[in-house]
Amino acid sequence: MDFVEELLAYVRHPSVSADPAFAQGMVGAREHLCDLMRRAGLEVEVVPTPLHPIVLGRRRGPAHWPHVVIYGHYDVQPPDPLDLWTSPAFEPEVRDGRIWGRGTADNKGPHLVALVALAHLLARRPDLPLRVTFLVEGEEEIGSPSFPAFLAARRDELAEAGCVILSDTASPSSDQIVITTGLRGILGMEVTLTGPKGDLHSGLDGGAVYNPIQALAEICASLHRADNTVAIDGFYDGVQAPADWERDQLRQLGLTDAAYAARLGVEALHPAPGLTGAEATRLAPTLEFNGIGGGYQGEGSKTVIPSKAFAKITCRLVPGMDPEATVARVEAAIRARVPKGIRCEIRHRQSSGAYFVCPPGRPNTPAGQKPLLQRAFAEAEAAVTAAFGRAPLYLREGGSVPIIGDIRRETGLDSVMIGLFTPDSRLHAPDENLELRMAERALSAYERLLERLAG
Amino acid sequence: MDFVEELLAYVRHPSVSADPAFAQGMVGAREHLCDLMRRAGLEVEVVPTPLHPIVLGRRRGPAHWPHVVIYGHYDVQPPDPLDLWTSPAFEPEVRDGRIWGRGTADNKGPHLVALVALAHLLARRPDLPLRVTFLVEGEEEIGSPSFPAFLAARRDELAEAGCVILSDTASPSSDQIVITTGLRGILGMEVTLTGPKGDLHSGLDGGAVYNPIQALAEICASLHRADNTVAIDGFYDGVQAPADWERDQLRQLGLTDAAYAARLGVEALHPAPGLTGAEATRLAPTLEFNGIGGGYQGEGSKTVIPSKAFAKITCRLVPGMDPEATVARVEAAIRARVPKGIRCEIRHRQSSGAYFVCPPGRPNTPAGQKPLLQRAFAEAEAAVTAAFGRAPLYLREGGSVPIIGDIRRETGLDSVMIGLFTPDSRLHAPDENLELRMAERALSAYERLLERLAG
Repeated sequence: MDFVEELLAYVRHPSVSADPAFAQGMVGAREHLCDLMRRAGLEVEVVPTPLHPIVLGRRRGPAHWPHVVIYGHYDVQPPDPLDLWTSPAFEPEVRDGRIWGRGTADNKGPHLVALVALAHLLARRPDLPLRVTFLVEGEEEIGSPSFPAFLAARRDELAEAGCVILSDTASPSSDQIVITTGLRGILGMEVTLTGPKGDLHSGLDGGAVYNPIQALAEICASLHRADNTVAIDGFYDGVQAPADWERDQLRQLGLTDAAYAARLGVEALHPAPGLTGAEATRLAPTLEFNGIGGGYQGEGSKTVIPSKAFAKITCRLVPGMDPEATVARVEAAIRARVPKGIRCEIRHRQSSGAYFVCPPGRPNTPAGQKPLLQRAFAEAEAAVTAAFGRAPLYLREGGSVPIIGDIRRETGLDSVMIGLFTPDSRLHAPDENLELRMAERALSAYERLLERLAG
Repeated sequence: MDFVEELLAYVRHPSVSADPAFAQGMVGAREHLCDLMRRAGLEVEVVPTPLHPIVLGRRRGPAHWPHVVIYGHYDVQPPDPLDLWTSPAFEPEVRDGRIWGRGTADNKGPHLVALVALAHLLARRPDLPLRVTFLVEGEEEIGSPSFPAFLAARRDELAEAGCVILSDTASPSSDQIVITTGLRGILGMEVTLTGPKGDLHSGLDGGAVYNPIQALAEICASLHRADNTVAIDGFYDGVQAPADWERDQLRQLGLTDAAYAARLGVEALHPAPGLTGAEATRLAPTLEFNGIGGGYQGEGSKTVIPSKAFAKITCRLVPGMDPEATVARVEAAIRARVPKGIRCEIRHRQSSGAYFVCPPGRPNTPAGQKPLLQRAFAEAEAAVTAAFGRAPLYLREGGSVPIIGDIRRETGLDSVMIGLFTPDSRLHAPDENLELRMAERALSAYERLLERLAG
């Protein structure tokens, strides 16, 4: 089973979960995946959901064999804007040491690494004493709406496993793998302010009413202090300070503020006091504005006082914060700042707690972690070190992968997250790609890791 | 010449100046207008411009006859959104005492009132000793780009006239006509802030950089004080306090803050200290946000830190303010508040000074006003009082009609502005309409006014 040939074929199925126009691509990718699993020696089950089915590939065995769950997702982001792709999104090609195409990095390439490694391993050791449940969903890019119910329905089978292994996080390069030990939680809401019942002429009525854009700007501006900390009472309650070993690992990443600023194209970073940019993104909570809108947005000018203005806000949460209490605090802070003459509606509330797991050998590794998880961390470190020539770093990542938290909550399983895409993999953007050298080394690491987990 | 029949026919030509798809409608409306002018007894000249020609209709005569310019515009706003019209925008109909259709109120109906009144008058008095230059442009709804050059080219002919009469302003109802004595100037700009060179993932990079939306909110929020005055040094420099007679006229308008708030659908108005809502809109300067945008604006959420965010800002200026100095002050205030890590670009600067003219008999009427202007004010008051049964109010209006200032600057002519549309005429919106009773009374008033101007 040749990884590159298989990935090219897999990516040709345009499995965009968000857009019903791609329904045939979803079917094609799923059938292709089932075929791959069968050829790898797995027993396939397609689990229906209200939207896109989940594919399970099982290697069964006696109860005393270790049991590992491997997670991935076969759906991909929409390919837009199409005209910015060097080669078409769903006609993947190999060029300059990379495989280019939608899904090469997120997540068809990374879970195919695990599947091909398993196929090679089972071809070499047909009697390998390891149970595997390959779990590949089709709704990750639209927020995994069917996933919690699936987990609840299959709780008994899954909870009996020892850990989850997945690759849906980032490493800085194919020379330095990161094993992700934590993810920030996410909290989101959309705030809409309404002033006059309809848009007004800013000449005829300007000066008489509170402009909703002005009120929105004042509320948004009041949510941070000048030092970029969040100006909401209790926002930082319960935040756990990162451990010394975490700061130490982060320092080994070697990302200076100057280099980070240069990469983002800004004159200066703006982290909260006492934090480097890398620390601020991985270890501290935030409140960010993801979108703002109101009034006339076209070319030139239209002299309107809009009836409405809105802002989309998300917070990232770190371990120790109470997500429900934080949603309530943010909402209360906004409502308390709405001036007279303006009405406020808050919609689309969502929240998920942060995730954190401590690898073995680190201070404060909790005693309760499952033995297979501990072994998976240790064997992953050995396998990565052997395949990539350098020990992995253990870092928290700033993003949120709510399914990791869902899995822990529903099944008690923790996850070993091995980062196989890099900052230049262009996830969710045109020219998504996976580095060939990363894939080759990862195939070797995954094969070794799975073999060692068998004991 | 029947006003209603003629207006229905005129409105059927979809003369949308902003959209090249309506080029045929512009030609049709223009030819229709030329035909109307000829039938009224005027000599027609079509003056080419780089875009939409200007139509002149002249009644010539000896130099000792008074000479009045009547202004209007034959272009109209786009009809969108089409589905909100009760009857189609360009298939006008009479219903419930009103004529409905795009352009009925802005401005085909009002300048047709003047033209039909003149036709009736000349039919009755073919030897009327009055020179008239009917001046109807086709680019008013797109900012009159060709108008200043036209004025400069025809300065000598126009400057020789005594005043301009037009109806492109508002009255509260067909029972109370307002003669507009002033208009606010307008100043506009678009502010774009840029942070990172591309959109960032608010998880992976959130906390490290200054979010451009946050910076924009902070800048916008800083431009007003809590009492809704503008927080820019020198913004109010030179502002002339309104005269007592102006405040008195405004009180006679009888628009209480409670009634005004109810009409706009807000719980409370928000005028600057010491001003009623009506005073704030007509007599005081403003800084308003007409649009704001940045990041994700679609349904649901997208966890992005945008590269850019923008705001569209206009100020309304009152007599005494220096428009160029005010543009510079606003721009300087914004630039001074841009934080490190954010770049600021300011585009689409525009500014026009405020306009003000004092009717005769009011304190402080300047001695330099042309005699025909003085007579036009006096005869307009008499004609409106006779036709509408109540004396007009003399009020400044909050909007800006830059062509009035252009006319004064280029030709020295001042304008008598008789408001013929009302707040429920729905200018620029679906279901634009003109009240039939307003048109009937206005025909009578215009006929009397023009007859008396002849002396």
